[in-house]
Amino acid sequence: MKVLIVYDSSTGNTEKMAHAVEDGVKKAGVEPVLKHVDEVSVDEIPQHQGLILGSPVYYGLPSWKIKKFIDESVKYHGKFDGMVGGSFASAGGTHTGAETTIIALNEMLLVHGMVIQGSSSGSHYGAASVGSPNDSALEACRKLGERVGRLVKNLKK
Amino acid sequence: MKVLIVYDSSTGNTEKMAHAVEDGVKKAGVEPVLKHVDEVSVDEIPQHQGLILGSPVYYGLPSWKIKKFIDESVKYHGKFDGMVGGSFASAGGTHTGAETTIIALNEMLLVHGMVIQGSSSGSHYGAASVGSPNDSALEACRKLGERVGRLVKNLKK
Amino acid sequence: MKVLIVYDSSTGNTEKMAHAVEDGVKKAGVEPVLKHVDEVSVDEIPQHQGLILGSPVYYGLPSWKIKKFIDESVKYHGKFDGMVGGSFASAGGTHTGAETTIIALNEMLLVHGMVIQGSSSGSHYGAASVGSPNDSALEACRKLGERVGRLVKNLKK
Amino acid sequence: MKVLIVYDSSTGNTEKMAHAVEDGVKKAGVEPVLKHVDEVSVDEIPQHQGLILGSPVYYGLPSWKIKKFIDESVKYHGKFDGMVGGSFASAGGTHTGAETTIIALNEMLLVHGMVIQGSSSGSHYGAASVGSPNDSALEACRKLGERVGRLVKNLKK
Repeated sequence: MKVLIVYDSSTGNTEKMAHAVEDGVKKAGVEPVLKHVDEVSVDEIPQHQGLILGSPVYYGLPSWKIKKFIDESVKYHGKFDGMVGGSFASAGGTHTGAETTIIALNEMLLVHGMVIQGSSSGSHYGAASVGSPNDSALEACRKLGERVGRLVKNLKK
Repeated sequence: MKVLIVYDSSTGNTEKMAHAVEDGVKKAGVEPVLKHVDEVSVDEIPQHQGLILGSPVYYGLPSWKIKKFIDESVKYHGKFDGMVGGSFASAGGTHTGAETTIIALNEMLLVHGMVIQGSSSGSHYGAASVGSPNDSALEACRKLGERVGRLVKNLKK
Repeated sequence: MKVLIVYDSSTGNTEKMAHAVEDGVKKAGVEPVLKHVDEVSVDEIPQHQGLILGSPVYYGLPSWKIKKFIDESVKYHGKFDGMVGGSFASAGGTHTGAETTIIALNEMLLVHGMVIQGSSSGSHYGAASVGSPNDSALEACRKLGERVGRLVKNLKK
Repeated sequence: MKVLIVYDSSTGNTEKMAHAVEDGVKKAGVEPVLKHVDEVSVDEIPQHQGLILGSPVYYGLPSWKIKKFIDESVKYHGKFDGMVGGSFASAGGTHTGAETTIIALNEMLLVHGMVIQGSSSGSHYGAASVGSPNDSALEACRKLGERVGRLVKNLKK
């Protein structure tokens, strides 16, 4: 059982979050595969049971590179039903688009027929941070990874 | 295993959809419990493993009654993590808010920590119809119910 | 020229924001009319050239009372085209639904055919705060009020 | 006074919509400038008083090319406050993401501080069509163009 984590990052903030997400997936007993969006092909998705997307917030939405990655995944459309998904985003400020970015990432995953889970304790739609992720943001990332990992295990039983 | 379907309806359109959702839940081998929002209490939610919300589209969002129901569910906040959720909406026209209503319903479910699944074949975020639901809309409702029912079964194994 | 500010508030946080929005409207040279949602009727909307909605964040969306107010405004549907709108929200934590609440408020205003303006400097979609509004949140509220007030003046010339 | 219409299109459906939007802008007495996203630079935006974005629906959101165009516009961030914006989208089916695409386009415009107007009569958030645009979708496009054109004129008085 493997979860693919695809992220974009220019300042390194989203990358730090990605590593915390990776830790969470591991903690759930599932293998994380971490890839920068520049170094991943959509052909790698089918070998995984989960897909977590992470992006900096650009104009309230995921970066064009993350969008391009998902646009290209159309060649597998219909093959990812029931796969587990998750989202995280790194913003430059509070209330500057982290939530709308995560909602957008989730929308792409839902169009693929994926399963996503919210959180009742903060960062409800996915993990978010402002600037360099603080302890609380990193904890939200770990919990996201763990949540996705556990769902993968529960759904594959 | 039971799934609670809570809907609001004034013209009867959302109610027709609710019955199709009910059929889908049954088809998955799970017991559906169908309730108009006027006849349900939040105290009934904890006896179920799934919650599906249906609403007419009023100003691009769920009706205030559906919102009130969820606002009142705050007394159980944190107790519904991992419950399975789903959403459907009935609009007066095409592109008049069915999608934004379903996204809003899903957001409420995610804040409760619930699990939702998209669909790769049409009505991606939940089931939608325009006016009295046609065959294709009713089929989307049945598939939604079945999807939620199957997830409930898979996650409870 | 008058702008109606309708807000819901239980802890007083959204109310504090409402007063800062009021100050901003005044600064633009337009008369603000501030009303708690419990003390306003939809019949008051037509006497104004702007409508600003404020809400606490409940389950990622506006409170059911704000939703009920707008649902009832359907009796004037089509009469508010070109009116100026704006939104603000008070959340319990960061990334717990302030943005999705503001987006939802904006959606209701757009369905009424209203004009809204974003901000390029923080709190892009409307004014948001976490807990009791700090100076930066209050400044965002003042700017929101001023922005709406200025638009009202510019569009009525 | 000029309005820039930037669209992406592979099947030609969004392009047909773009031409109808163009007609609407003209009808308002403002000059439309129509550009495929492959043939436009962000350096052209500042010469216009309005910006209308059109996109096919890919995974519930604008195409990556439209996203890239806006991501690149960051070099002018803060310069477009008060510019008039508008959005349209072409989907492959009903309730398959046209609304979420338009909401996303609007979010990008709002982050730039732009002014957008909804419509109280159908296609509330922007103009949408399913497949090749029918008469009603083309009319929504013309009205969108006219609405943006009129706002440009009213705000520049």
